[in-house]
Amino acid sequence: MYSFRNDYSEIAHPKILDALIGSNLIQSDGYGEDEYTKEAIKLLKYKLQGNNIDIHFLVGGTQTNLVAISAFLRPYEAAIAANTGHILSHETGAIEATGHKIISVKSENGKLNPENIQSVLDKHTDEHTVKPKLVYISNSTEIGSIYTKEDLKALNTFCRNKNLILYMDGARLSSALCSNKNDIEFSDLTKLLDAFYIGGTKNGALIGEALVICKDSLKENFRFNIKQKGALLAKGQILGLQFLELFKDNLYFTLAAHANNMAYILHDAIKEEGFSFFSDSYTNQIFPIMPDKIINKLQKKYAFNIWDKIDKDTSIIRLVTSWATDKDKVSEFICDLKESRI
Amino acid sequence: MYSFRNDYSEIAHPKILDALIGSNLIQSDGYGEDEYTKEAIKLLKYKLQGNNIDIHFLVGGTQTNLVAISAFLRPYEAAIAANTGHILSHETGAIEATGHKIISVKSENGKLNPENIQSVLDKHTDEHTVKPKLVYISNSTEIGSIYTKEDLKALNTFCRNKNLILYMDGARLSSALCSNKNDIEFSDLTKLLDAFYIGGTKNGALIGEALVICKDSLKENFRFNIKQKGALLAKGQILGLQFLELFKDNLYFTLAAHANNMAYILHDAIKEEGFSFFSDSYTNQIFPIMPDKIINKLQKKYAFNIWDKIDKDTSIIRLVTSWATDKDKVSEFICDLKESRI
Amino acid sequence: MYSFRNDYSEIAHPKILDALIGSNLIQSDGYGEDEYTKEAIKLLKYKLQGNNIDIHFLVGGTQTNLVAISAFLRPYEAAIAANTGHILSHETGAIEATGHKIISVKSENGKLNPENIQSVLDKHTDEHTVKPKLVYISNSTEIGSIYTKEDLKALNTFCRNKNLILYMDGARLSSALCSNKNDIEFSDLTKLLDAFYIGGTKNGALIGEALVICKDSLKENFRFNIKQKGALLAKGQILGLQFLELFKDNLYFTLAAHANNMAYILHDAIKEEGFSFFSDSYTNQIFPIMPDKIINKLQKKYAFNIWDKIDKDTSIIRLVTSWATDKDKVSEFICDLKESRI
Amino acid sequence: MYSFRNDYSEIAHPKILDALIGSNLIQSDGYGEDEYTKEAIKLLKYKLQGNNIDIHFLVGGTQTNLVAISAFLRPYEAAIAANTGHILSHETGAIEATGHKIISVKSENGKLNPENIQSVLDKHTDEHTVKPKLVYISNSTEIGSIYTKEDLKALNTFCRNKNLILYMDGARLSSALCSNKNDIEFSDLTKLLDAFYIGGTKNGALIGEALVICKDSLKENFRFNIKQKGALLAKGQILGLQFLELFKDNLYFTLAAHANNMAYILHDAIKEEGFSFFSDSYTNQIFPIMPDKIINKLQKKYAFNIWDKIDKDTSIIRLVTSWATDKDKVSEFICDLKESRI
Repeated sequence: MYSFRNDYSEIAHPKILDALIGSNLIQSDGYGEDEYTKEAIKLLKYKLQGNNIDIHFLVGGTQTNLVAISAFLRPYEAAIAANTGHILSHETGAIEATGHKIISVKSENGKLNPENIQSVLDKHTDEHTVKPKLVYISNSTEIGSIYTKEDLKALNTFCRNKNLILYMDGARLSSALCSNKNDIEFSDLTKLLDAFYIGGTKNGALIGEALVICKDSLKENFRFNIKQKGALLAKGQILGLQFLELFKDNLYFTLAAHANNMAYILHDAIKEEGFSFFSDSYTNQIFPIMPDKIINKLQKKYAFNIWDKIDKDTSIIRLVTSWATDKDKVSEFICDLKESRI
Repeated sequence: MYSFRNDYSEIAHPKILDALIGSNLIQSDGYGEDEYTKEAIKLLKYKLQGNNIDIHFLVGGTQTNLVAISAFLRPYEAAIAANTGHILSHETGAIEATGHKIISVKSENGKLNPENIQSVLDKHTDEHTVKPKLVYISNSTEIGSIYTKEDLKALNTFCRNKNLILYMDGARLSSALCSNKNDIEFSDLTKLLDAFYIGGTKNGALIGEALVICKDSLKENFRFNIKQKGALLAKGQILGLQFLELFKDNLYFTLAAHANNMAYILHDAIKEEGFSFFSDSYTNQIFPIMPDKIINKLQKKYAFNIWDKIDKDTSIIRLVTSWATDKDKVSEFICDLKESRI
Repeated sequence: MYSFRNDYSEIAHPKILDALIGSNLIQSDGYGEDEYTKEAIKLLKYKLQGNNIDIHFLVGGTQTNLVAISAFLRPYEAAIAANTGHILSHETGAIEATGHKIISVKSENGKLNPENIQSVLDKHTDEHTVKPKLVYISNSTEIGSIYTKEDLKALNTFCRNKNLILYMDGARLSSALCSNKNDIEFSDLTKLLDAFYIGGTKNGALIGEALVICKDSLKENFRFNIKQKGALLAKGQILGLQFLELFKDNLYFTLAAHANNMAYILHDAIKEEGFSFFSDSYTNQIFPIMPDKIINKLQKKYAFNIWDKIDKDTSIIRLVTSWATDKDKVSEFICDLKESRI
Repeated sequence: MYSFRNDYSEIAHPKILDALIGSNLIQSDGYGEDEYTKEAIKLLKYKLQGNNIDIHFLVGGTQTNLVAISAFLRPYEAAIAANTGHILSHETGAIEATGHKIISVKSENGKLNPENIQSVLDKHTDEHTVKPKLVYISNSTEIGSIYTKEDLKALNTFCRNKNLILYMDGARLSSALCSNKNDIEFSDLTKLLDAFYIGGTKNGALIGEALVICKDSLKENFRFNIKQKGALLAKGQILGLQFLELFKDNLYFTLAAHANNMAYILHDAIKEEGFSFFSDSYTNQIFPIMPDKIINKLQKKYAFNIWDKIDKDTSIIRLVTSWATDKDKVSEFICDLKESRI
């Protein structure tokens, strides 16, 4: 059984584990006040061309979202998200548990645009409703699509005018930035966003996400928020070391490029077989639509998720590739797919 | 500079990292539904002689406390803790942030007893005050003391009679169980407590705590609570693998015994030098009282925390040993201490 | 300017104020432990034919909803509401502020049915999403429609089977029960619902709503929840006295019948003039659709809310009647409407 | 049975009810946007000599405390209160339920001073503890003592220097300001405090407290906080009308002066009988210490609270007077007390 179920099936890229071993017995100060963390922050600031940004390392995506969003909002303020948004659908009400409503916007492609947001603002005009304050976007999105530079510029301008916070969930940021349709530079992000995170877990790290706060007013006392939510790792050096390793030689991007390439091979072969797709994805998640009969056959050798039903005989499946995806297994999958149609 | 500052300065015991490397590229299901986690739970149940217990692996201590306590209590219910309790003093209001008051009880030795708790119950009798419901104890305590079996039995009986939940923070459980004054068996814990956690972070794990829920009524839907608080690790196998490694050959206890032994050597030598101690500790944290002059000299070579001031010339320091503490450094410290007095 | 804006424009029915004056200088115990409150609870239990119910008096609707729903749910549990539901749209995230998500269901008529709820259950199947637990309905609904006995029976059966709590917001319960399309007896409510409230504010009381808890498991320690949310009125007798007055001679229903009758007169005349309506309402809120030109004319003499835009020239307005609505003003409004068309 | 149990036993001063009746059938806009509320705010601003203040009317004391404090604090910030503080001991964890810790300071006389607060600041220095931010004081205090102008000035200067918010619970503000030991003018309050409330419930109002926000940074979007906590009264005119009535002819102060006078008569007579007191009170709450034998006799004719036990035969009782306290009953109580000693 080979798994295309997700991009966190394997533990970590070997270089990550090597880095931990290499520093294993060196004594470090706790809670992210160690030298590795400081160095990683310095390196990321350099790569992001952002001296006036704050960076905090956290453990996972839901944790990062809830720490950041609950810190950024006043009690009566709300987040806006596309209906596919991870915080809306797959985080067990983590944001609401911190007291904040998330306003859902119907989106066809997993993305938000100024019109979407304006329609929310139009309906929230006085103290009888929450005050929409934070725009939550994911890049790449939960259905594999990505934002263009123009998309982000439009959102940035709109949010600035409306005094909204623009926050990007970057669980799969690497896959977006390495997409063959991407036109955003890594260093653009600090100019276009108020805050975002650079996902590690889904791109080769053992654990870890790097939260980047660009907007000054969101920075104050941020470590208090991290600690209060149980998200301040005692052995912070574990996080610093990994991000050093991921970024010092651009391993972060190399790994994502591999993941995307594996997805492209799958995508093209599946398309060639005549299948259509639920969404336009140029990243490491693809969503082919297939007859259940074929799906059943494939499931005997491959693990993957059923995303949704189309009708009683047809479903959308989700195939996810990663830094660790074996090219041979991809080829094998394609062969098996072809065979399954006979 | 050698550090006696804490027991989480080094990354992890080498065997822990070896275990990760050994399984690195094996694909696992996410979120703790992998085989390593299942095996680790099975092993722990065996060691704890508790078939009817639930075990969940979490990342850190504050996280475990807040997930567990907020899950166990109704909104108007409160925890009771000794004034030295970690949740009261060093978790940035993490429990209050989930909506629950912690009632502080003045305690001389870091421990709680039935009389302490009864005095709280006497003052909380109607709906104008919170309802005390959960008794939070730490073993070993924040000042190094430990509970005896008789202590726990008394608390267990009392809590059962008063319909209170008895919860133990086991961040340093290993040090308590390996103390030369301890009379509690590992497997006693599931009989004496409603819930507790087995600390990994402070005893050789990279990250990880194992929450054990003994009382049936506290078990239901617990994974929802973990996910909602951002505490459900995507790569759950990392936690399972570590606890397997820690418990399959009793590494967990071997490491703690070493930590304690290093503390005993320090303790006895310091005592021999004529210094007194802030608390009776038989675990890996000791609290000698020393003139600031000597402390200043020691600080040139050793890192440790100043716990509190006694008077203008004297302070309490905290020395913490761990699985990684180098015996030679302990000897050196003792030499330096002797020398510093001249 | 005469107002059809809402049903709480006037202070209170004169009999309510008389009742307060009549008992003004009698000393009462605080916090709802007075004799009037006890008597009012006894009277309501009699009228509801429910000996095994708990009744608590609270001040307002949003307060009652948030106290009840936050008390009934575990942290990871969510409410389900129609997209028009008051808790979703007009309570400033009050429920989310207590930590709970509300799942919105698209509904054409302001009502929920088992199929709606099942569709939510189908999408919430594991710990990565919240657990739907409470079904929130309003009767009459926010758009004037009402539940039939059959509707409630179907919901009751469904919720019982699925282990869901069925909760009814009764801010305008009186108007529903006095509707000419209603077939529910007041005493049916305790058999068909797990909890609900009897709205006073919008039917002649100064302040006050009576929360009725039918399901045993929801009753425990409920007064703690009230106090914690700042909802335990010091002078509880004010609430008890009013509900006594409202129910001892059925004033509650007489007032609502008047409100409904005023709405029917408006409705029929507007219909006769050829206007259509946004919703089928047989209660004290009606939603005619009119050209903006006519609306503008009417607004010179009458206050009412614009509910929504239909197109650039047409809007939905909301007209609300109450126990205090003057029949002459209703006639005058109809004349003015006729005239406005010339 | 005559009650000295509290100052909210009777419903309202007759003039308050008259004011409601006088405006009963006048239609008002909802939610405090009515003319009475606007006029009451204007009047209070005039009396407080504060043009740059915001005033919001709420229903009760616990509600006002929780709405204000939760609005003023960031999630990781905490309040500081004397150990007798109402929010600490008698509000069922209402503040903690909004996510904030309250740090208790041992106080002999129910008051806080800069030294108390500094001692808290000394222990809260980094992100491992909450950040103390709001100083909660009550005037008069829960044990009847009052702040002098010098006291408030010292706190004001200290809080300003330390960037702390100084908030006063004025549930019994009237009694403090009318105390024969008071030297604070009503209009001083807006200069000395960042926010406070003017208690109505305990001084003749039916319901109602007026929250005054002086510090600009605390004002923004405040009505959202009120609505979210279920504290925005639909019939806001009820609150406006009452405060108009209380302040237009200084009824507020006349009523409190009567309450204090009744307490002074009781105090002096009890003292003359040779009893001592638990606290120095010059307000409408006094705390005599008496043998239980005498207390038992008095309890046959009078209702009052037992505050605490002194020893097995002696207790502290609390006697509370109000605007409604009957002077004849006070004389009778004194006679009965004298007789009870025979």
